[in-house]
Amino acid sequence: MNDDAFRHETDSLGTLPVPASAWYGIQTARAVHNFPISGRRPDDDFITATVRIKLAAAVANHAAGWLDAQRFEAIRRACELVLTGKHRDQFVVDRFQAGAGTSHNMNANEVLANLANIGLGGEKGRYEPVHPNDHVNMGQSTNDLIPTAIRLTVLAKLPRLLDAVEGMAQAFADLAVQEADTVKSGRTHLQDAVPTTLGAEFSAYAWTLRRVAGQLEAQRPYLCAIGLGGSAVGTGLNTAPGYAKRAAEELARLSGEPIVPAGNIIAQMQSMADLAAFSGALRALAIEITRIANDMRLLASGPRTGLAEITLPAVQPGSSIMPGKVNPVMFEMLNQVAYQVLGQDHAAAQMAAAGQLELNVMMPALGSALFDGMDWLTNALQAATNRGVVGLTVDRERCRDYAHTSVGLATLLNRAIGYAKAAEIAKESQHSGRPVREIVVAHGLMSAEAFDKMVLDAALPQQP
Amino acid sequence: MNDDAFRHETDSLGTLPVPASAWYGIQTARAVHNFPISGRRPDDDFITATVRIKLAAAVANHAAGWLDAQRFEAIRRACELVLTGKHRDQFVVDRFQAGAGTSHNMNANEVLANLANIGLGGEKGRYEPVHPNDHVNMGQSTNDLIPTAIRLTVLAKLPRLLDAVEGMAQAFADLAVQEADTVKSGRTHLQDAVPTTLGAEFSAYAWTLRRVAGQLEAQRPYLCAIGLGGSAVGTGLNTAPGYAKRAAEELARLSGEPIVPAGNIIAQMQSMADLAAFSGALRALAIEITRIANDMRLLASGPRTGLAEITLPAVQPGSSIMPGKVNPVMFEMLNQVAYQVLGQDHAAAQMAAAGQLELNVMMPALGSALFDGMDWLTNALQAATNRGVVGLTVDRERCRDYAHTSVGLATLLNRAIGYAKAAEIAKESQHSGRPVREIVVAHGLMSAEAFDKMVLDAALPQQP
Amino acid sequence: MNDDAFRHETDSLGTLPVPASAWYGIQTARAVHNFPISGRRPDDDFITATVRIKLAAAVANHAAGWLDAQRFEAIRRACELVLTGKHRDQFVVDRFQAGAGTSHNMNANEVLANLANIGLGGEKGRYEPVHPNDHVNMGQSTNDLIPTAIRLTVLAKLPRLLDAVEGMAQAFADLAVQEADTVKSGRTHLQDAVPTTLGAEFSAYAWTLRRVAGQLEAQRPYLCAIGLGGSAVGTGLNTAPGYAKRAAEELARLSGEPIVPAGNIIAQMQSMADLAAFSGALRALAIEITRIANDMRLLASGPRTGLAEITLPAVQPGSSIMPGKVNPVMFEMLNQVAYQVLGQDHAAAQMAAAGQLELNVMMPALGSALFDGMDWLTNALQAATNRGVVGLTVDRERCRDYAHTSVGLATLLNRAIGYAKAAEIAKESQHSGRPVREIVVAHGLMSAEAFDKMVLDAALPQQP
Amino acid sequence: MNDDAFRHETDSLGTLPVPASAWYGIQTARAVHNFPISGRRPDDDFITATVRIKLAAAVANHAAGWLDAQRFEAIRRACELVLTGKHRDQFVVDRFQAGAGTSHNMNANEVLANLANIGLGGEKGRYEPVHPNDHVNMGQSTNDLIPTAIRLTVLAKLPRLLDAVEGMAQAFADLAVQEADTVKSGRTHLQDAVPTTLGAEFSAYAWTLRRVAGQLEAQRPYLCAIGLGGSAVGTGLNTAPGYAKRAAEELARLSGEPIVPAGNIIAQMQSMADLAAFSGALRALAIEITRIANDMRLLASGPRTGLAEITLPAVQPGSSIMPGKVNPVMFEMLNQVAYQVLGQDHAAAQMAAAGQLELNVMMPALGSALFDGMDWLTNALQAATNRGVVGLTVDRERCRDYAHTSVGLATLLNRAIGYAKAAEIAKESQHSGRPVREIVVAHGLMSAEAFDKMVLDAALPQQP
Repeated sequence: MNDDAFRHETDSLGTLPVPASAWYGIQTARAVHNFPISGRRPDDDFITATVRIKLAAAVANHAAGWLDAQRFEAIRRACELVLTGKHRDQFVVDRFQAGAGTSHNMNANEVLANLANIGLGGEKGRYEPVHPNDHVNMGQSTNDLIPTAIRLTVLAKLPRLLDAVEGMAQAFADLAVQEADTVKSGRTHLQDAVPTTLGAEFSAYAWTLRRVAGQLEAQRPYLCAIGLGGSAVGTGLNTAPGYAKRAAEELARLSGEPIVPAGNIIAQMQSMADLAAFSGALRALAIEITRIANDMRLLASGPRTGLAEITLPAVQPGSSIMPGKVNPVMFEMLNQVAYQVLGQDHAAAQMAAAGQLELNVMMPALGSALFDGMDWLTNALQAATNRGVVGLTVDRERCRDYAHTSVGLATLLNRAIGYAKAAEIAKESQHSGRPVREIVVAHGLMSAEAFDKMVLDAALPQQP
Repeated sequence: MNDDAFRHETDSLGTLPVPASAWYGIQTARAVHNFPISGRRPDDDFITATVRIKLAAAVANHAAGWLDAQRFEAIRRACELVLTGKHRDQFVVDRFQAGAGTSHNMNANEVLANLANIGLGGEKGRYEPVHPNDHVNMGQSTNDLIPTAIRLTVLAKLPRLLDAVEGMAQAFADLAVQEADTVKSGRTHLQDAVPTTLGAEFSAYAWTLRRVAGQLEAQRPYLCAIGLGGSAVGTGLNTAPGYAKRAAEELARLSGEPIVPAGNIIAQMQSMADLAAFSGALRALAIEITRIANDMRLLASGPRTGLAEITLPAVQPGSSIMPGKVNPVMFEMLNQVAYQVLGQDHAAAQMAAAGQLELNVMMPALGSALFDGMDWLTNALQAATNRGVVGLTVDRERCRDYAHTSVGLATLLNRAIGYAKAAEIAKESQHSGRPVREIVVAHGLMSAEAFDKMVLDAALPQQP
Repeated sequence: MNDDAFRHETDSLGTLPVPASAWYGIQTARAVHNFPISGRRPDDDFITATVRIKLAAAVANHAAGWLDAQRFEAIRRACELVLTGKHRDQFVVDRFQAGAGTSHNMNANEVLANLANIGLGGEKGRYEPVHPNDHVNMGQSTNDLIPTAIRLTVLAKLPRLLDAVEGMAQAFADLAVQEADTVKSGRTHLQDAVPTTLGAEFSAYAWTLRRVAGQLEAQRPYLCAIGLGGSAVGTGLNTAPGYAKRAAEELARLSGEPIVPAGNIIAQMQSMADLAAFSGALRALAIEITRIANDMRLLASGPRTGLAEITLPAVQPGSSIMPGKVNPVMFEMLNQVAYQVLGQDHAAAQMAAAGQLELNVMMPALGSALFDGMDWLTNALQAATNRGVVGLTVDRERCRDYAHTSVGLATLLNRAIGYAKAAEIAKESQHSGRPVREIVVAHGLMSAEAFDKMVLDAALPQQP
Repeated sequence: MNDDAFRHETDSLGTLPVPASAWYGIQTARAVHNFPISGRRPDDDFITATVRIKLAAAVANHAAGWLDAQRFEAIRRACELVLTGKHRDQFVVDRFQAGAGTSHNMNANEVLANLANIGLGGEKGRYEPVHPNDHVNMGQSTNDLIPTAIRLTVLAKLPRLLDAVEGMAQAFADLAVQEADTVKSGRTHLQDAVPTTLGAEFSAYAWTLRRVAGQLEAQRPYLCAIGLGGSAVGTGLNTAPGYAKRAAEELARLSGEPIVPAGNIIAQMQSMADLAAFSGALRALAIEITRIANDMRLLASGPRTGLAEITLPAVQPGSSIMPGKVNPVMFEMLNQVAYQVLGQDHAAAQMAAAGQLELNVMMPALGSALFDGMDWLTNALQAATNRGVVGLTVDRERCRDYAHTSVGLATLLNRAIGYAKAAEIAKESQHSGRPVREIVVAHGLMSAEAFDKMVLDAALPQQP
């Protein structure tokens, strides 16, 4: 070990070398040594959220007269350095780490203390005049910082996710207008049913995507009620008067979200219920995406041996062995992401249930599971929208043919001749292979023209 | 086969004997034969919801002039018979059945048609003048009836569940008042932390339970937006003008819920997103219950080898082999139910994702999974509240002892002497076994009285 | 309360009335009062398993000289009464109950003690000369009895489940032989691919079903290693010398399974790992069934608007509104059951993880989740085999047409003209709508006859 | 765009620039553009597995006379370059990508073709004389390559995982020997139970870990049965005679595993049943780890307000606010990883169920979920063993005190005085606070010495 390349730092457990160039300190170094698990560093929005809390805490502590102006300014400047994108590579603790995220919190405390001290003419690793615990972490505990940082991170990612959902919804809505008159056969139980339109199907996708987005949006107020200010166990020990309120205001300013101290600070520190509920809403989105992506792949099946009502944009050759094959790769990718999001949700849900007494120590992994799920889904939705929904083409003739040959057309006769007789015609069509229209005309029940008109009328949604 | 004991009915597939005493008909008999799976009949609230829809549909069809007065009155009377509790045993199709619930729907159509015809002087199995499909099922399809019936059933069960949650929340809130001054040691990472009160803990449970109940309550408007009126594929084929609106009004009257036709009928028929989101909120409740029940069992652990801060009511001898043992059986039962609810949710979520094109055929099992989960959780919460929360006793002396011996007390010195020096005192306490208080006094840092006062102050939650 | 109708019994918590007719006693009565949750009584095989253990324990205790001949004979006769089907209705404790199953165990102890005492001329509720705890429960604890009883119950259900899987596998194997030459187009990504045969597809289903059945069968030795003899915490306290071994032998005799004491009794009492692994194998089965049922519904889609390669047996009219519709109801039901089994597995897995120190108190619900899952799947497989696989018909012409029009046929040219040129032909076919065959012939690449021969050859699986 | 920095390549969809330095080609470039989802590149073992298959296929094709010596040697050398660690950074397609992994497969084909051609004096991007599809991919399809590569990857990771499990098992086994005589109180329902030893507990952990490892090991033969040779749909189209067998032999040689062609190639291509079963066994491991980690954190709870039977090694300061706190961070991390593994398993299970007809397009994400789960668990187990199990210390005095004060000691009197009387003594102890021993002696039931001897005897496990 090259002595120049390291400085030595000491904590309550002893002395250790720390890379001289590092802005982090000994506790971070211990954590890096202790947790070589996934090799994945913290989510970038999570770093931002953590440092915003450090800044908000410093503001509140300064306002309360607990943090002097010199240290406050130094900490503020350090925070702003990181918030403007500097030193992000100094956040180095694995996603799987010390319970509750102590290591990540100390990583932030050490980086900011060192930056602050250098700013004040001090040196790295000495922690004077700014101490990681006494000043950067003043009034805070990992136990109230981490759940608050997770909430802020989810809030930061949420608009991007909602934009991506809306992007797909709008793409379907555009198609719905375009294909409003594209008559096709509905299918229930994957069996011939009565006429509908492709526009109606796309419109339903758009509407449902917006509905589940609305459910996610409705989680926002829950996420905004933070436990910061509870410090170690929720009682607010070692916090300055007015600190919780002032810090929340500052966080609201920094994040643009209506952050407020929760009605019960203790509860918000120990309980992950809001995150579990959020994950449940995220899951509902993933479920709908699963269903819609499955449908899109089914509608695009073919070209000769499937339904082939639509053709998805060709974005790459489909097969390494079958020349000319074009597969629905964007929706296949979207399906895969949605399934992994269900896995992230599953992990998050179980971690949420694992809280004990004053704390849930599973928080770092719980947060990470949600962060990844949100990011991946956002990216996947955008990609699938841009290269899967936009640009798809419709085989209107094929759609119409299905509508006119469906055995389900017998249903249109229910009002005229009753269910039982209509069933006989359906049966005749099924066994003979002759279309319902032909049989109806042959039986003198209706003219061909009247039948066609009836099919068209049936396809368009009634107004309630 | 005794001929007297059976009548013969015919449908499009052929002729079958049906028990002469049965109010149901041939299609139900086929379903009973086809699906001998769980031996479990439909949920009772689901029968009510189904029949309410039949009644509402009849009202709407009559209002539109599609159903004559005689048939309408006969169907109305038949529905009211069932709604007042008669003939419930005639709903006999297994929980696992034909996709989408066609068999359950036909079971209802047949029972009501037979009841209506008998009321009109007809006979069972003849389906004149009231036909199961043409009149009882008029304007409906399994595809719009079942998702609507599931929504109504969940809405019927929801107030009972919310009452049970509120019952437990109130029981904890009462204890919170009672134990507001019971100082104890907080525990984070299951390790000694700083002082708190038992009242604060119980208060947090109460607050969180109400919060997750609020999340469930917030699902109500989503559930109230029904797809009834879409008939087979959402287009409203074979429905009378004004039917969807009128039927929704009638359902609102019958259920007392603000039922309305959904903004997109097609979407609400094919998509189970609202139910998936509801299940996600139900899961959040089960997660919190899991956590709280785990905590209660931990706080009650002992009497000699555990934490023993509380003693749960003894409701039965605890062991077949260990005399005098009293176990936390009510919370153990509650934990088991909560885990099974997580299983129900898991099943429901996967079934919600399995919709294809115009329909989700998994609906009968999806509904059943939710219904059971809600009922079991309701019952379990009530039992655990009445025989687990109410009547528990607190060992205040033991709580105080923990508060005063916790190594975490060193934290109270942070502001006075800084984190690093406080850590040394904590270390000294841990290694020597001497309480922090004794060391503090010995070091001349504080008087014993001042220390005790500080502990008490620290235990009480600060106001934000 | 009619005094004649009740007797009074006393335990360590006090005195309670018990129905005079009941064979169970006060602790069971307490449990019935305490746990009104699901209304579902114990699984029948679980009652059998419990009583077999009681009998085996009595045999072992008698052999060791700890249980006198009179009491032994009385207990033996009581057990045999229940084992031959009597008094099953006396097992009345809810599926969700006291942790670890104490209430169920005491229910068995009380019923058997009362039966034994009546057999000896005593009376119900007096527990002389046979005492529920001292004699029926001798050497046992709920903590070793329940995990052993769960294992025995799963072992009892396993052959039935495996028979049902084999039944479906054989039905597919029969179809595979029948359709060995039915050429059709393979589909990958739901897109046209190269030729295969329907027989090959069915053969793959059969082979996979047998493979997952083999995985379940491979769990048997794990399940046979029991912890009985560990009594309260695994140390074997209060057990007679040789008891564990002798009891295991007796259980082997009673169950016909190679039951042995586990290599580590303590582990087998506290750990549910074997059941978690079993549930994982059960899940693999449910997953394959999900996939196969989905495929069957897809292959049967139509008749006009789907793939329509096969037609499933019509077992009931398919729709309440669409006359003549025949839906794939047996596979829809099978899908629903498989999803619920995934829910049961999910619940079981989480309960397995919830053990603490010497015991897993979630066992009753864990067992119940598995039992239901196995039973429902068994029933569903049989029903779907008999009314879904057996009797299905194949549209061989349609299959052949697909094979000959698939764009994937270009792949057959790879060896002759290379991937890149074959891709051009595929593209030409896709855009022009002309079959690959026609283009190949037009380009003079091959004669029509040679092409057809090549398709046929390609469809048949090569031998490795 | 700097023209020098790019070359232009053409495929069936058109022409695109590819970085001149890249060894991959146009289809990889398309995939990079299409799938900007997670930013995570392929698992390294998966790259190895993929290239091993390419090598094995080339060997088999050459042996069959389908691949000439020059091209074979060039491909072989290219494969060996990558297998010895070169050009790993050229595998650049996102974990979430084209269904079935076509993009990853083409990435490999292109990299190897370019390396081979350069080796033969050709140039990048020209694909002469070695073509990615015609030669590198000869006889293969994504559809048989990817499932085989996933199997090989899992097999490669398995021994490392098993080593890590065995490492922890052995560490517990060592402690079991060391603490074989450390008498302590067992706890069931978290309540006082009868005596046991800490050694017995650790021994049970060791035994169970080895048992679940055995279950994983038992999956090996299933994983070794590959579908390679099935090419596009399992029929082996475009494969040379003897290819499947020869390639399997070569893979066996390269991997050291007994790889063989599966009994049903078609089944092994479309079905993920083996991976689902493997994931189920992995889940059983994660479940046991969850339980054991929970136990360790509970036994280590304290130092003053918990059970405090053991003290875990201090690896870092525990809290940012509470000085001197040392938390069970290694087991907290292990818990988090185990929960995430349950999430990975959940995702994998659902993806396994999503196969359709000849293919399961979810494979890339399915594989990735398993790979991550295995790696993270391996790393976490090693870390937790080395810094959590090894080096823990035991408070034997405290253990003994618990054993002697447990109310459960009354159980030791069952044989002597019966369950009912023993219950009275337990009750007296619980209510008076006097130890059972004192009451027993006071009642003249036993001498103090005899009682102590009895406790000791009771703590040691009986032999079955």
